[in-house]
Amino acid sequence: MKEILFGAAYYLEYMPYDRLKEDLDMMQQAGMNTIRIAESTWSTLEPTDGEFDFSYIDRVLEEAQKRKMNVIIGTPTYAIPSWLEKKCPEVMVYNKEGRARYGHRQIMDIMHPVFRKYAERVICKLAEHTAAHSSVIGFQIDNETKHYGTASREVQELFKEHLKEKYHTTEALNKAFYLAYWSNSIHDWDDLPDMLGCINGGLATEFAAFQRSLAAQYLQWQSDLVSKYKKKEQFITHNFDFEWKKFGADIAQDGYSYGVQPDINHYEASKAVTIAGTDIYHPTQDELTGAEIAFGGDSIRSLKYDNYFVLECQAQAFKYWTPYPGQLRLHGYSHLASGAQSILYWNWHSIHNGYETYWKGILSHDLATNPTYEEAGVMGREFERLGQDTLCIKKENKVALIVDNRSLDAFKWFPIDKDLSYNDVVRWMYDSLYEMNMECDILDIHALNERNIVKYSMLVTPVLYSIAEEKIALIREFVKAGGVLVSSFKSFVANEELSVYPDAQPHGMTECFGMHYNQFTEPGKTKFAGEPLSYFAELLQVTTAGSYENYDHKYWGRYAGLTENAYGKGCAFYIGCFTSKEILKKIYRKAYAKAKETVPAFEWPVIIRSGINAKNDTIHYLLHYSEEECEITSPYDHTVDLLSGKEYQKGDTIHLTDWDVCVLKEQ
Amino acid sequence: MKEILFGAAYYLEYMPYDRLKEDLDMMQQAGMNTIRIAESTWSTLEPTDGEFDFSYIDRVLEEAQKRKMNVIIGTPTYAIPSWLEKKCPEVMVYNKEGRARYGHRQIMDIMHPVFRKYAERVICKLAEHTAAHSSVIGFQIDNETKHYGTASREVQELFKEHLKEKYHTTEALNKAFYLAYWSNSIHDWDDLPDMLGCINGGLATEFAAFQRSLAAQYLQWQSDLVSKYKKKEQFITHNFDFEWKKFGADIAQDGYSYGVQPDINHYEASKAVTIAGTDIYHPTQDELTGAEIAFGGDSIRSLKYDNYFVLECQAQAFKYWTPYPGQLRLHGYSHLASGAQSILYWNWHSIHNGYETYWKGILSHDLATNPTYEEAGVMGREFERLGQDTLCIKKENKVALIVDNRSLDAFKWFPIDKDLSYNDVVRWMYDSLYEMNMECDILDIHALNERNIVKYSMLVTPVLYSIAEEKIALIREFVKAGGVLVSSFKSFVANEELSVYPDAQPHGMTECFGMHYNQFTEPGKTKFAGEPLSYFAELLQVTTAGSYENYDHKYWGRYAGLTENAYGKGCAFYIGCFTSKEILKKIYRKAYAKAKETVPAFEWPVIIRSGINAKNDTIHYLLHYSEEECEITSPYDHTVDLLSGKEYQKGDTIHLTDWDVCVLKEQ
Amino acid sequence: MKEILFGAAYYLEYMPYDRLKEDLDMMQQAGMNTIRIAESTWSTLEPTDGEFDFSYIDRVLEEAQKRKMNVIIGTPTYAIPSWLEKKCPEVMVYNKEGRARYGHRQIMDIMHPVFRKYAERVICKLAEHTAAHSSVIGFQIDNETKHYGTASREVQELFKEHLKEKYHTTEALNKAFYLAYWSNSIHDWDDLPDMLGCINGGLATEFAAFQRSLAAQYLQWQSDLVSKYKKKEQFITHNFDFEWKKFGADIAQDGYSYGVQPDINHYEASKAVTIAGTDIYHPTQDELTGAEIAFGGDSIRSLKYDNYFVLECQAQAFKYWTPYPGQLRLHGYSHLASGAQSILYWNWHSIHNGYETYWKGILSHDLATNPTYEEAGVMGREFERLGQDTLCIKKENKVALIVDNRSLDAFKWFPIDKDLSYNDVVRWMYDSLYEMNMECDILDIHALNERNIVKYSMLVTPVLYSIAEEKIALIREFVKAGGVLVSSFKSFVANEELSVYPDAQPHGMTECFGMHYNQFTEPGKTKFAGEPLSYFAELLQVTTAGSYENYDHKYWGRYAGLTENAYGKGCAFYIGCFTSKEILKKIYRKAYAKAKETVPAFEWPVIIRSGINAKNDTIHYLLHYSEEECEITSPYDHTVDLLSGKEYQKGDTIHLTDWDVCVLKEQ
Repeated sequence: MKEILFGAAYYLEYMPYDRLKEDLDMMQQAGMNTIRIAESTWSTLEPTDGEFDFSYIDRVLEEAQKRKMNVIIGTPTYAIPSWLEKKCPEVMVYNKEGRARYGHRQIMDIMHPVFRKYAERVICKLAEHTAAHSSVIGFQIDNETKHYGTASREVQELFKEHLKEKYHTTEALNKAFYLAYWSNSIHDWDDLPDMLGCINGGLATEFAAFQRSLAAQYLQWQSDLVSKYKKKEQFITHNFDFEWKKFGADIAQDGYSYGVQPDINHYEASKAVTIAGTDIYHPTQDELTGAEIAFGGDSIRSLKYDNYFVLECQAQAFKYWTPYPGQLRLHGYSHLASGAQSILYWNWHSIHNGYETYWKGILSHDLATNPTYEEAGVMGREFERLGQDTLCIKKENKVALIVDNRSLDAFKWFPIDKDLSYNDVVRWMYDSLYEMNMECDILDIHALNERNIVKYSMLVTPVLYSIAEEKIALIREFVKAGGVLVSSFKSFVANEELSVYPDAQPHGMTECFGMHYNQFTEPGKTKFAGEPLSYFAELLQVTTAGSYENYDHKYWGRYAGLTENAYGKGCAFYIGCFTSKEILKKIYRKAYAKAKETVPAFEWPVIIRSGINAKNDTIHYLLHYSEEECEITSPYDHTVDLLSGKEYQKGDTIHLTDWDVCVLKEQ
Repeated sequence: MKEILFGAAYYLEYMPYDRLKEDLDMMQQAGMNTIRIAESTWSTLEPTDGEFDFSYIDRVLEEAQKRKMNVIIGTPTYAIPSWLEKKCPEVMVYNKEGRARYGHRQIMDIMHPVFRKYAERVICKLAEHTAAHSSVIGFQIDNETKHYGTASREVQELFKEHLKEKYHTTEALNKAFYLAYWSNSIHDWDDLPDMLGCINGGLATEFAAFQRSLAAQYLQWQSDLVSKYKKKEQFITHNFDFEWKKFGADIAQDGYSYGVQPDINHYEASKAVTIAGTDIYHPTQDELTGAEIAFGGDSIRSLKYDNYFVLECQAQAFKYWTPYPGQLRLHGYSHLASGAQSILYWNWHSIHNGYETYWKGILSHDLATNPTYEEAGVMGREFERLGQDTLCIKKENKVALIVDNRSLDAFKWFPIDKDLSYNDVVRWMYDSLYEMNMECDILDIHALNERNIVKYSMLVTPVLYSIAEEKIALIREFVKAGGVLVSSFKSFVANEELSVYPDAQPHGMTECFGMHYNQFTEPGKTKFAGEPLSYFAELLQVTTAGSYENYDHKYWGRYAGLTENAYGKGCAFYIGCFTSKEILKKIYRKAYAKAKETVPAFEWPVIIRSGINAKNDTIHYLLHYSEEECEITSPYDHTVDLLSGKEYQKGDTIHLTDWDVCVLKEQ
Repeated sequence: MKEILFGAAYYLEYMPYDRLKEDLDMMQQAGMNTIRIAESTWSTLEPTDGEFDFSYIDRVLEEAQKRKMNVIIGTPTYAIPSWLEKKCPEVMVYNKEGRARYGHRQIMDIMHPVFRKYAERVICKLAEHTAAHSSVIGFQIDNETKHYGTASREVQELFKEHLKEKYHTTEALNKAFYLAYWSNSIHDWDDLPDMLGCINGGLATEFAAFQRSLAAQYLQWQSDLVSKYKKKEQFITHNFDFEWKKFGADIAQDGYSYGVQPDINHYEASKAVTIAGTDIYHPTQDELTGAEIAFGGDSIRSLKYDNYFVLECQAQAFKYWTPYPGQLRLHGYSHLASGAQSILYWNWHSIHNGYETYWKGILSHDLATNPTYEEAGVMGREFERLGQDTLCIKKENKVALIVDNRSLDAFKWFPIDKDLSYNDVVRWMYDSLYEMNMECDILDIHALNERNIVKYSMLVTPVLYSIAEEKIALIREFVKAGGVLVSSFKSFVANEELSVYPDAQPHGMTECFGMHYNQFTEPGKTKFAGEPLSYFAELLQVTTAGSYENYDHKYWGRYAGLTENAYGKGCAFYIGCFTSKEILKKIYRKAYAKAKETVPAFEWPVIIRSGINAKNDTIHYLLHYSEEECEITSPYDHTVDLLSGKEYQKGDTIHLTDWDVCVLKEQ
């Protein structure tokens, strides 16, 4: 039976005393079978230039082998050793804060040739040393890679070459970005100014996109190096992470995985790996909703339309996240419900000193058993019993939510509103789907094409501000051919240079939506659908839209805030303002009906996520995100809960305790 | 008939496609007759060092001439081309943030000889090229000029020379600023330290005043250059702006024209122009009060006691400012009511890419008609019908409000209170006058002299902290001779070096006010006139003041918060604390009575602003800042509303719709 | 009769005109006998390199001598003259903001040899010039000295030497701080990276401790210099200050003395002085509680278990602090009640220009009499009547509160909670004692040893996070031997390198407390003792604790938030969460009973602080911090109020007016 990869990051290097055997034994007792090692340990692996010490790795591999445990080798490059910075201070990234000081991780210049030379050597040595070991099942390249704002003179020269290739002449460049504004146009390529001072939002966004592509290339370069050494069956993965929503004290790491990652493009970078991986952290205790687990999972699964690894997720972590009884297990099954085929905690033990002392692992600092460890064991034994072939699922979703890094960047220059970010709108549209149990894929706009668009009956576009003509045409044709589109305000506004299309908005979509607009307003006293509005209101002028709802306001009341239009064989909804999720859900219900999809009978806090396992069983994960008990009526003809063994016929009552999980298999 | 200059800034250089003729035709259809061009377009005018391209300008001039439209030529210097920074990086300003990076506008070093050399060439070329053209009615030099914090070594050397001239010896300098404190005194002039580290508020303020004088000199230099080429009848103007009150997201430009401009002195700099101009932006929709239009207009009109140009004002601008029906027209007449003789919008079209994409013009990004454009047309046709000789007015106000840049600076070092700025107090005192329909001039303390003070029956001094002995004497004598003075707390405290006068406060005015004080306090539970106080309370000790009101507090109750004193033939009021506008208005009413002026019968939201037009008619602008309709009783013997043609006798009811305007001419 | 040193800082150098005699006469009329001069006046003393001018000092000494007034000479080094920075710009401190600009005080590099050379010369010249003068009673070295973040290359080299001495090998260093984490371990000492980029909280804290030791060494160096010149009977003191709690506008100096000073260690640095001194500023008016005066006094008195100087305290200072009638006198007696033997105001007059114009002195800017000056005179005459031998007291407290700079630093890296600082918890535990009239000493953990611990019956440890094994043992043995311990959450967690002890927490104290824990949580809906919790909750697992109180929460209810355990002959209380002061006081009452101490009958706002004077009288200061009158019952057999002369028998009613003081001497 294939096993679900279950375990944790393990750092023998960071232990206060030798307890390797005890640790691995404790893991096995909890049903854990996999550890991720070596990433971030460059200074231990190569304590001084050219002297390598694999003893920590060898000892772990040896003990793992004894226990038939799996090991994932992480390249250690995201935290460089001090001797490298002493040798060549320019390996530290140069960005808008100047040259970074040594100390933190992830602040080297990923484009610097000296960094690359030394990184190549340690990657190759490590891969060469470990690839043949029978416990090693694959490699993780680098860690949560981003561009770190790299903007050295060399990077800026590369960017200039990129612009030359793309625009050929400075005239074309000037025109594309309207650089004449405030005398920013250039005559000679060598007049291209330092991008760190750039105030043209379009050009600055082009530079950010270029920086993201450097990060993707850097991962590809690592992948190519590892590929020279790895065995065929060994995978290459990477732990993609998400925009971090910070809260709490400045110095603290408090925050969680919130939305689209601004500093690397997942779709572009995922070409470097054979299986996508991810790190997901989320609120828990009273704030546990499952939304971040689902959002992250839907994003990463959609990269390759395949199962993925959860390479990091939270055990105890911060005080905010000490799980209530039942929650750790609920987290785990929630990941599986999105299509994960591994669950690795970060990390095994709580670090005793360093930046992340209070990003606690499965074990607390006392390295003894505790309720979190014990609950992991309950789940681990269930995983052992059921295995990957039963629990890991694939999906064929009919809804896709479209995301875009350039639109995210655009709003750094032209904020949607005082405190409404790109990801706030993405999460508003995603979470409303999630809470209604309408499963979706999450696709980068650049991943959307004529081949995959036909999989979907409904597309959702949150603030898809920046979009090329051909993608507009693709979406328009999707509707014409029978698809359903739900678009928010500020979609279809500008091209990829962020130049606003100089005709009626939404550009290229006015017929599709049956309306156009050229003014928008602060809502002030405006109400929509009985609710006051907090943000933004586009003043939609209905042309052919068959159904619409106007604002309630002395002056703006003659404009619509929502339109619904039949177009070709399909239907397009446009929402001109940021409403409550309740109003959005009403719109979704109509859209879902138009798309001829069935809206599930339950809503959050009862979540159902479904798929087909390797045995071709239909599996429904039933996840209960509440401390209150509840009862639901089974909607399936005949299912068995693989965890409790209970069988349910259609109409039977399923009793859910607090933070409960059922894994229903259709019989 | 002379026309009111009505139009917009127009940038052919920034258009997404060629629509010059269509644009000018649309303008004419809206009654527009004037465009302002060329400012900020240096990189188009001179794409590379020494190669000039006037084609954009020529084409606009040609089409304007065909339509008999007026053109104002702006010198393009406030945004430098990239090639200039590449040639000489030191043209970027050096200030407390270090050397500025190229990108933004208004961050060059206005004192750098290389910048000056290239600026001179482009100004002269442009003036030479355009001055003879029949459409060109005048020049605007630079744009919203300020000193940008310039503090290069050379500027600091000039400052040292300035100090030498003013103080002759270091002993005198040390004594003037009390530099011995914390060992800041110097023995040799060459020991004068870097002003960027200066923590002596007085000396730092002297440096800021010096920097403002550099900005004024820079404008004079531009004026002198343009004067070599311009025709006699062509004017030279400049668009003075105001302290920008920021709100909303950091990156966004959201804000509005709030108060005295800290970074250039209008009075000093206005000597460089033949007619003063201004840029005024203000809240609108539910927040439209007209106060900013009136404050800005009163400030700029008072510079030369003459009509002035509104060179920029808002069309749609940000979402906050999309005008309600009627508001754009109300804005326009409000400017005329203060004495404006032009109304130019910024700008004609909305920019499609760049820093100000959402600082929207008359046309939205679709470049089509819209409600804002249409309402501009309504007003434009009224302007065409009535003309400048009827609508533009001059005033002889009896009240002057006194402002001062050094007092503004002083409070950066010695804040009035946690969040009460200099301009907050200025606006408290100004807005209360405005709302009571008590029109005033706004005078820089340095503009107040024996010749013009006799025009006034009442002076108002908000926090006039820094004031020279001779100006104190001037104000004291004004009261003695029969004038009325209303002074707020923190007036008459320190000299121009910000050295607190070492005797009883208010310095030199204790007899005039009939009180003195040497302590002040946090109000805590103190009430004044029935109101709790939020800020500051001076503990006034009454000597001869005939009337006063004490604080309500267990301990501070023995001190006054307000005094009124007959002095000579006049009367002086002193307010020791920041009260509500209601309390201030009660004081104003008493003061106005003492000044033998009549308090108008209406208050905001009905605003009346009056003057004499070129035909010697008395004109009353009746401006209604409310969405509610209302009726008022006409106070004038016999007037006709030039807009509606309706006539009113004294006592007749005038019906005002929402955001209404009447232009009453006395018959 | 020995006099209480009563007076002010006096700066003839800063006066607007010559009024030396008038000033000293005014002082004498107010009973003042002491001035502190010369500190901060280097640029007057030595206007240019090597030319000294003692005329200001000589004139003051001469007039002081005539009046038999005492003079304290301050070394002027904390504000350097401009010529020194011009000669050697590197004398300005290099810290994480880069090289400081000249201007402010206290931003030189105290380790720079050029600074030291010139500082040595001016100190020696000044000491030599003044030591023989009969008015000079002692010297103050420097002023509120701190390390100013000094981190030059030279300082970092010294730090490396310090680490070598302490850890001998890089292996030991790596292990001590767990540097392998994120590749921060080093192989060669020369690989030690720039501490300004350090993100290992432990190593960064070690560096901060090293910087504090540099500041202490610097004071010792000044002390040694002065000792070469001073007469035997002349003291050396220094004005230690406290963490400044800032409020109000950024630029303003508004704030007050709040808690443990982060940037110098008082205990370490106090070895340089013969008598400890301090500067204490505190809220007044409605916010006057006396807590800061008591906290500061208890801290400084405990440094040498002796009386101390108040070298600076507030007269009028800011608007927040203009004293109500009676408050200035109450402040004064409050200082004496803690063991002060001097009260010097900062300062005599209000500065007329400079950074601290509104840090007002006894005289306002008008240099005339005022209510503050007059009330100082009332107190001054009382001091003259009663004298030091009667009013100055010594104490033998039975309670010690333990503080620690490393724990304070630790929470900069690992915040306790979003806005709960180290000093917040210290003040929570201190103020609760203070309000219950339970007097205590405040001891640095490094000052606690086998000799002095026996003085105490009860120890209180607020968040004593970082603590060495031997200090844990000392405290554990204290309890075993019969002592009472009250510890807050986050005590006994990590060693001095901030490495969390890898066993059950609280480390080494689980038997003593009869509990252990390895998880903690955000409280969320948790209540404790009927109160909601705002911060942190440790999930205590009771083992032997005889008494405990559990949380009120669905899941956390099985854990305790408070435990009480008999251990040996003593008793230990542990509080796992931040409660209201009311709950803490209940715990203190129990603890006090266990310690067999009597809890006083009164609580704040009636404060009693007691001691023994030089005549061996028992003195009780009765301090009334309220604007309401009240009556209390005298608890003492027979006392006389030295101020009013009234006598009280046990049970007599003592009537206290607003802000009243009695000095009860036991008969």
